[in-house]
Amino acid sequence: MSFEIRSKDLLGRIGQLRTKRGTIETPFLLPVINPISQLIQARDIRDTFHFEAVITNSYLVWRRFKENPPKIHELLDFDGIIATDSGAYQILQYGDVEVDPSDIIRFQEQLDSDIAVILDIPTDQTATEQRAKWTVDETLRRAKEAERNIQRRDILWVGPVQGGVYPELVSYSAREMAKLNFQIHALGSPTTVMQQYHYDKMVDMIMAAKLNLPPDRPLHLFGAGHPMMFALAVALGCDIFDSASYALFARNDRYLTPEGTAKLEDLEYFPCRCESCYKRTPIEVKKMLKFERERFLAEHNLRTCYSELQTVKQAISDGRLWEMVEARAGNHPALSRAFDTFLRYAQYMESETPLRKRKGPFLISEKSLSRPEIIRHRKKLLENFASPTANRIILLPDKYLEPFRQNFNNDTSLKKLLHTPQVHMCSYNLTYGIIPNELVDVYPLSQTEDSIKPTSPVLRNTAKRMAEWLRRSSYKSRMIVVEDTWQHKIAESLRKQLKGSKIQILEIEPGEDATSKVLASINRKDRKRMR
Amino acid sequence: MSFEIRSKDLLGRIGQLRTKRGTIETPFLLPVINPISQLIQARDIRDTFHFEAVITNSYLVWRRFKENPPKIHELLDFDGIIATDSGAYQILQYGDVEVDPSDIIRFQEQLDSDIAVILDIPTDQTATEQRAKWTVDETLRRAKEAERNIQRRDILWVGPVQGGVYPELVSYSAREMAKLNFQIHALGSPTTVMQQYHYDKMVDMIMAAKLNLPPDRPLHLFGAGHPMMFALAVALGCDIFDSASYALFARNDRYLTPEGTAKLEDLEYFPCRCESCYKRTPIEVKKMLKFERERFLAEHNLRTCYSELQTVKQAISDGRLWEMVEARAGNHPALSRAFDTFLRYAQYMESETPLRKRKGPFLISEKSLSRPEIIRHRKKLLENFASPTANRIILLPDKYLEPFRQNFNNDTSLKKLLHTPQVHMCSYNLTYGIIPNELVDVYPLSQTEDSIKPTSPVLRNTAKRMAEWLRRSSYKSRMIVVEDTWQHKIAESLRKQLKGSKIQILEIEPGEDATSKVLASINRKDRKRMR
Repeated sequence: MSFEIRSKDLLGRIGQLRTKRGTIETPFLLPVINPISQLIQARDIRDTFHFEAVITNSYLVWRRFKENPPKIHELLDFDGIIATDSGAYQILQYGDVEVDPSDIIRFQEQLDSDIAVILDIPTDQTATEQRAKWTVDETLRRAKEAERNIQRRDILWVGPVQGGVYPELVSYSAREMAKLNFQIHALGSPTTVMQQYHYDKMVDMIMAAKLNLPPDRPLHLFGAGHPMMFALAVALGCDIFDSASYALFARNDRYLTPEGTAKLEDLEYFPCRCESCYKRTPIEVKKMLKFERERFLAEHNLRTCYSELQTVKQAISDGRLWEMVEARAGNHPALSRAFDTFLRYAQYMESETPLRKRKGPFLISEKSLSRPEIIRHRKKLLENFASPTANRIILLPDKYLEPFRQNFNNDTSLKKLLHTPQVHMCSYNLTYGIIPNELVDVYPLSQTEDSIKPTSPVLRNTAKRMAEWLRRSSYKSRMIVVEDTWQHKIAESLRKQLKGSKIQILEIEPGEDATSKVLASINRKDRKRMR
Repeated sequence: MSFEIRSKDLLGRIGQLRTKRGTIETPFLLPVINPISQLIQARDIRDTFHFEAVITNSYLVWRRFKENPPKIHELLDFDGIIATDSGAYQILQYGDVEVDPSDIIRFQEQLDSDIAVILDIPTDQTATEQRAKWTVDETLRRAKEAERNIQRRDILWVGPVQGGVYPELVSYSAREMAKLNFQIHALGSPTTVMQQYHYDKMVDMIMAAKLNLPPDRPLHLFGAGHPMMFALAVALGCDIFDSASYALFARNDRYLTPEGTAKLEDLEYFPCRCESCYKRTPIEVKKMLKFERERFLAEHNLRTCYSELQTVKQAISDGRLWEMVEARAGNHPALSRAFDTFLRYAQYMESETPLRKRKGPFLISEKSLSRPEIIRHRKKLLENFASPTANRIILLPDKYLEPFRQNFNNDTSLKKLLHTPQVHMCSYNLTYGIIPNELVDVYPLSQTEDSIKPTSPVLRNTAKRMAEWLRRSSYKSRMIVVEDTWQHKIAESLRKQLKGSKIQILEIEPGEDATSKVLASINRKDRKRMR
């Protein structure tokens, strides 16, 4: 295997991709460089900006050299990892290329590329479904043909997935491509979708591909290079990006940030701490000659892309990728809409997210309630947590459970209460719903910090989860302790949802001692029962 | 005036503060340096890290030099702007200082400080209300005494506001302090509140001070230096910060980011593009000697603070400070709670926010609906927009208004309809409610981009705003055009709220031509009426 996954969060992962010239750590951006003339030399891109690999276009090299292919590492004067694309971008732009699919495979082998792409047919975003289907089929036909034509297996070959904005076609394309012998898969041409800020469509496209590709092969998102969407795309399982955007935006006096794109002319301050920006002011840069300014902006853009990917990797390593995606979604309405689409796929992220992480989750908004940790707790509770043989369940707002537990050792009646097989102590909160006493210390139930407010959708959701579990349990009596208004609402909702089962509501006034009130209530009941 | 405001957004502003040694552009952070030994020299802090001014503690200098005060610029070997604090921090830490309030004023004058602080009594966060009141009164007494004792008026003097977590006391303290002759005000000691992440309390404290201080004097937030709260504090009207946090956190192997604090030991990647981080890996830094590591972290922390303030300034200049505050609030539940508190003060921000900005607002979530632009539109509509003498109002979902307007020139019946004094064309949407045709091109009504979803609270709010205005108008007939479910709900809600007034609901099926359907409906009505 050329790809080894080191660490995971959501569908994102940190991986090591071994090429014949060395290893790339993913998620990675391959900066696109022109094979003939470069704004920033490949060597500089590696040595100064820390990108270990670049991508260039083998079709442009072919156009120039045809029968006399150079070695690509010599042409670019770069001894690092070089990926080559095949001309598909030119097909997208100009409708066709002159080269034959099998020729460009052989040509890339002669170039000695480290990663190479077959000549696929990208699906234009405006393509009809029929045309899109043709691009998928033709790409598959070429992929199968490529399997036979490829001679050098020391090169990592990329099998592109097409289908454009038709998720069914993307799924089909991915399923079929997955059967072939490629080391990397790529999702074709969401460039237009991204340029138009249709990140929500991009989410559907990526997921259609991702869910049908082998998880142990890296997924390359063609033409994606804006740092504002890296976190989202990585969380969806993209491992490799390639883009000329650092240079293209620079050429148009555009400045990339993890929050979006700024026009240089609008900048009075550089919202950035990179070396380029720290040493210059926008006034100085605006006065530069065009080529100096372009270089300045390209350097800033490269640093921004690099550090955003480092930030993503640190988020994966911390187990805080969700937080990062959610926070980045707040930077632009288009990303916020994409995050809403992302939430629809939350179920697929649960199984890939580690059970234990270095840090407890931050739950920021209602949207955070779709997190893997929350989904997992619900599933675990329903599927695995055999409710004990207790007759009675007591549901305490979670702020009371800790005092209960703390008093435990000093208070024999409490000890009796907690250990008695008849009573099952549980806490509840807005985020996880019911947390049985026995699970309180299981990660991340007590490591979670939230700023969730008891809005009606949240309350509805919490009460539904609580009722769902209570319905499956066999307690004879149920008590819910309430103090705040939202707790009253939960209690009322439980009564409505669980018609037929009696639920005792025990109200605590602010300042009252919940422990003793619960004890008194139980004792009263017990006395009653004994009578 | 020593303070000139250049640009504003929310309660934040970019200002020029003139001292006798030069000008500071606010919002500004005064890095705290120890007068005796520095981790990073003042000169370096300016020349390498771009902070034009530093703050040091005159009390520590007094303890060492007493009767023989040095010149502070010589002591620090720094010819830039130097502010001095007075020992109040030591009062907070150790309960008392040995120096007399009038002595430390004279001492700071002898030091030749550029900005100086009287010896106030900080309110401990755990102080009882009685004790807090005493600190306020004693600080005021000392401030009045200082007014008489100050001899050098070329120094900018800071009048501190106290009161701790008691907003009434803070308001009182601010009102009284505002009457005295100070060039800068400061809000005392929210350090503990901030250390405990009680940013919501901090919001109330700042607003209690801000709303009672002269807006033309800068407000200094004592001891605030974490980049994660700069945007929020600036949006609340804070202009100056001072903090040793860059060095204190470095000493404890802590790494500051605009998102929060990281432990160096947890970092596998530097989530940062500053020069220090770009050239090193966490592994290398972890292996450094303690003093090298401390220096490395302090440099990173300084750069982070500086660039976060540059980012805040660019946001003010773009008119996107709200976006920045809202996005940063997504980084931590404590900031998210503080943002909820911030929303309660939204009304005070409207009057300070420019009418026109370079960029249209991004409305990200329901919380964005408290923005000044939205509040302003509601006010304007209710107070200033005389509804024309039309008999009939037609409310169109905003996506239909543009086609209506575009067809206008080609369609005489439309022209008649739009120009007829009997019909008032308006559009409506989830964010602004009703937008009369005449206002569509007024900033920012058509420059707004949103990702607001029609949740029940949003719909309730929109329908309420719409009904509020309709109630004040005198149309004889009202038609609302609806297509999506949420539009139906709005229409139903309007009918309920405006019982007694008839509201015609015109349903458009997907794909139907709204223009002609509305025209047909009106013509039918007109024909009826004519009969």
